[in-house]
Amino acid sequence: MRLTIAAVTLALALPVAAQQTDRTAERLIDDILASRQSYEVLSYLTDNIGPRLSGSKNAALAVRFTTQRFRDWGIDVRNERVMVPHWVRGEERGRLVSHNDQRIILTALGGSIATPAAGVTADVVEVTSYEQLDALGTKLRGKIVFYNLAMDLALIESGRAFEAYSKAVIFRGVGASRAAAYGAVAAVVRSVGSASLRTPHTGSLRYEEGKPKIPAAAVTTEDADLMHRLLAKGEKVRMHLVLTPRTLPDVASANVIAEIRGTERPGEIVLIGGHLDSWDLGTGAIDNGSGCAMVMETMRALKELGIRPKRTIRAVLFMNEENGLRGGKTYFANAAKREELHRHVAAIESDAGAAPPVGFITTLEGQNLERVKTRMRVLSRIAPMYFESSKHTGADTSPLTDAGIVGFGLVPNPRHYFDYHHAPSDTLDKVDPKALAQNSAALAALAYVLAEEGL
Amino acid sequence: MRLTIAAVTLALALPVAAQQTDRTAERLIDDILASRQSYEVLSYLTDNIGPRLSGSKNAALAVRFTTQRFRDWGIDVRNERVMVPHWVRGEERGRLVSHNDQRIILTALGGSIATPAAGVTADVVEVTSYEQLDALGTKLRGKIVFYNLAMDLALIESGRAFEAYSKAVIFRGVGASRAAAYGAVAAVVRSVGSASLRTPHTGSLRYEEGKPKIPAAAVTTEDADLMHRLLAKGEKVRMHLVLTPRTLPDVASANVIAEIRGTERPGEIVLIGGHLDSWDLGTGAIDNGSGCAMVMETMRALKELGIRPKRTIRAVLFMNEENGLRGGKTYFANAAKREELHRHVAAIESDAGAAPPVGFITTLEGQNLERVKTRMRVLSRIAPMYFESSKHTGADTSPLTDAGIVGFGLVPNPRHYFDYHHAPSDTLDKVDPKALAQNSAALAALAYVLAEEGL
Repeated sequence: MRLTIAAVTLALALPVAAQQTDRTAERLIDDILASRQSYEVLSYLTDNIGPRLSGSKNAALAVRFTTQRFRDWGIDVRNERVMVPHWVRGEERGRLVSHNDQRIILTALGGSIATPAAGVTADVVEVTSYEQLDALGTKLRGKIVFYNLAMDLALIESGRAFEAYSKAVIFRGVGASRAAAYGAVAAVVRSVGSASLRTPHTGSLRYEEGKPKIPAAAVTTEDADLMHRLLAKGEKVRMHLVLTPRTLPDVASANVIAEIRGTERPGEIVLIGGHLDSWDLGTGAIDNGSGCAMVMETMRALKELGIRPKRTIRAVLFMNEENGLRGGKTYFANAAKREELHRHVAAIESDAGAAPPVGFITTLEGQNLERVKTRMRVLSRIAPMYFESSKHTGADTSPLTDAGIVGFGLVPNPRHYFDYHHAPSDTLDKVDPKALAQNSAALAALAYVLAEEGL
Repeated sequence: MRLTIAAVTLALALPVAAQQTDRTAERLIDDILASRQSYEVLSYLTDNIGPRLSGSKNAALAVRFTTQRFRDWGIDVRNERVMVPHWVRGEERGRLVSHNDQRIILTALGGSIATPAAGVTADVVEVTSYEQLDALGTKLRGKIVFYNLAMDLALIESGRAFEAYSKAVIFRGVGASRAAAYGAVAAVVRSVGSASLRTPHTGSLRYEEGKPKIPAAAVTTEDADLMHRLLAKGEKVRMHLVLTPRTLPDVASANVIAEIRGTERPGEIVLIGGHLDSWDLGTGAIDNGSGCAMVMETMRALKELGIRPKRTIRAVLFMNEENGLRGGKTYFANAAKREELHRHVAAIESDAGAAPPVGFITTLEGQNLERVKTRMRVLSRIAPMYFESSKHTGADTSPLTDAGIVGFGLVPNPRHYFDYHHAPSDTLDKVDPKALAQNSAALAALAYVLAEEGL
């Protein structure tokens, strides 16, 4: 055995048990980096099954496929029943009747009600803030409110894509309700995306209690720019909008839960998870087939290598993150019922794509953050990776972290994540098998070390 | 007056008349570089009028708008009647019935016939060459032939985008007919484009005489990759395809022809032109609203500055370049009837987008090429620009150059041209006003010098 200087240094700093853990983590990492299985799983989810919107036939197929795959690997697996919304996209068309019926490319926001069958036709009023909206007030009666706030590309370039997303996405969720309160007949939002070739990016809206419901859609950035330019010329812009989505009765679906039980403290749980559902426009490769593939690959490798840490590693493929979070909430409620909540050592989520890994965010702070950063030096075998504090480490695990469980979120390089996020372009070709394996290895290493040693 | 060393050198090399011509050319260049009018024209064509497919209401509006604009500028203008095809896109849908009805994003090729109303459903057979097609022969009976040849991105990166286009586009025109000859029921081609976010790129097909007609569409590169991966796994891929385009009776349309008559040899003509029609998916900003804007800007500046060269400058906005070339053919036929053909000193075409200008291609060769290169040093006021020999300098002017008229084609940097070409993403935001003005200035300078001095 040949020891590099780095290995010697590490060896000097770590107690014997930790050295043993690291050697096992290295074995895990090396196995995953050499494997194509995470890509094969992702390929099946995206190419063979396709989009997996909650309540759809494909979502059910994804539950069945992933469950069976765990079983084929000899891993304990069960389905946890989750009732999910069943929203189905219909036709979606926009045109500017004021400008030779120019086509406006748009897509309904998830959860939107339909327009009347003949569509709505109304003048378009542009706003870039809620202050502007409130200042216009009842002047919005009968109008289509057009929320036109661009993502800050400079912020994205500087590495803070999720911050840019948070800032730009403020209208998508509740913009329709707030416009409706002033009498607007529909709302269109500029797509929240960092790349466009006339590409619509969808997402969920949430109608607020007590306010009228109006249909809402995301227009592409090009179409947003078009309407902006026409309005800036002082022209009247009048749009005809047809949306025919339907909300059907809730459907029984499931979280897929697989476990490798701990050898010494099986009641203590390190959760690794990501959501199995996806939007319907693309095939959910980066959001979030890739997260599922990483979680599954972690379990496969542990099982295949016969690695059983002291604590239980529990993999959860959550259903319905995109338009309801019912899976995350159901998991939390059931864990609470089982009085299992505070037996969660940590909840590690992967829902940020599959670009090469750059770090983890975690709810840990201060010395605890420093300790895990130091402890996880084994990750440098994969890539240089940071640990950074964050209040929010993932949507599906947010009920857990809100209840005080330590959260981690895997962070692949976020530069291009929002190029494809929630768009038809979220397809398998956007994922590099090598980067996917690196992410899987990082997730597996963290989960294993935490399950072996605790926090 | 302060003379730079370069100016002194140039002055020493050029006779007095040429120095005078250059000073006028510089004035023309400076006026155009300081003007926003080419962008304003382009903005009206694209934002206000929109797509301008031959035979459409918008194409007629574009004829009217550009004619009136020349008139407003006090420039002689007329419409030359052109009968054009009137093909209208309908619904277009594809899905893989073999793979959970996965949606295939596609767009009908211009001129395609419709599928039966209920669509066609057939197994997909992939080929990447006509040799493969011919080798399969009658095995293609009842199949959907899938032509899957990717553009060579390395070639594009090396500056040879048009060559990459020529190599990849071989199936779009006649692929349907050649597949039909073997009994195929439909053809789909991989979109010929250098960027995609699930973006279809259309284009024309030409049914060959004596072969059955089958419907044809372009699929996005992502969808092409998907079908390729599934077929590569050995899976059967079966597609349901619905296309409902219609070919209506030909429509009377027009080339828009404006002239600034020469002072000494008005019978000799320097033609500048570009096509006014566009595909229907985008708004035809880079293809070819920008070319029209450059041609018009040249005429505006000449007129406004009171510059009248010895020979006539004739601007032609050709109708129907995209799906028939009827405008170019009609112009040629009428010029031949008027016995005017060989009074064309040169035909300069702009139909390659509006990225910063890098040069001109020309049918000139050898010493003639060198002479014009040297003569046009004034272009360095705009940007470093090359002159390069090429047999093909533009589609609309190809009847002229085929008849021996000297051709020139303006070349903006082609790197990103095929990112947007024939796609919904060909919209105004892809054009930088400064680069558009630079192209206009280059076109104007060449046209002016040739009209003043001849070739």
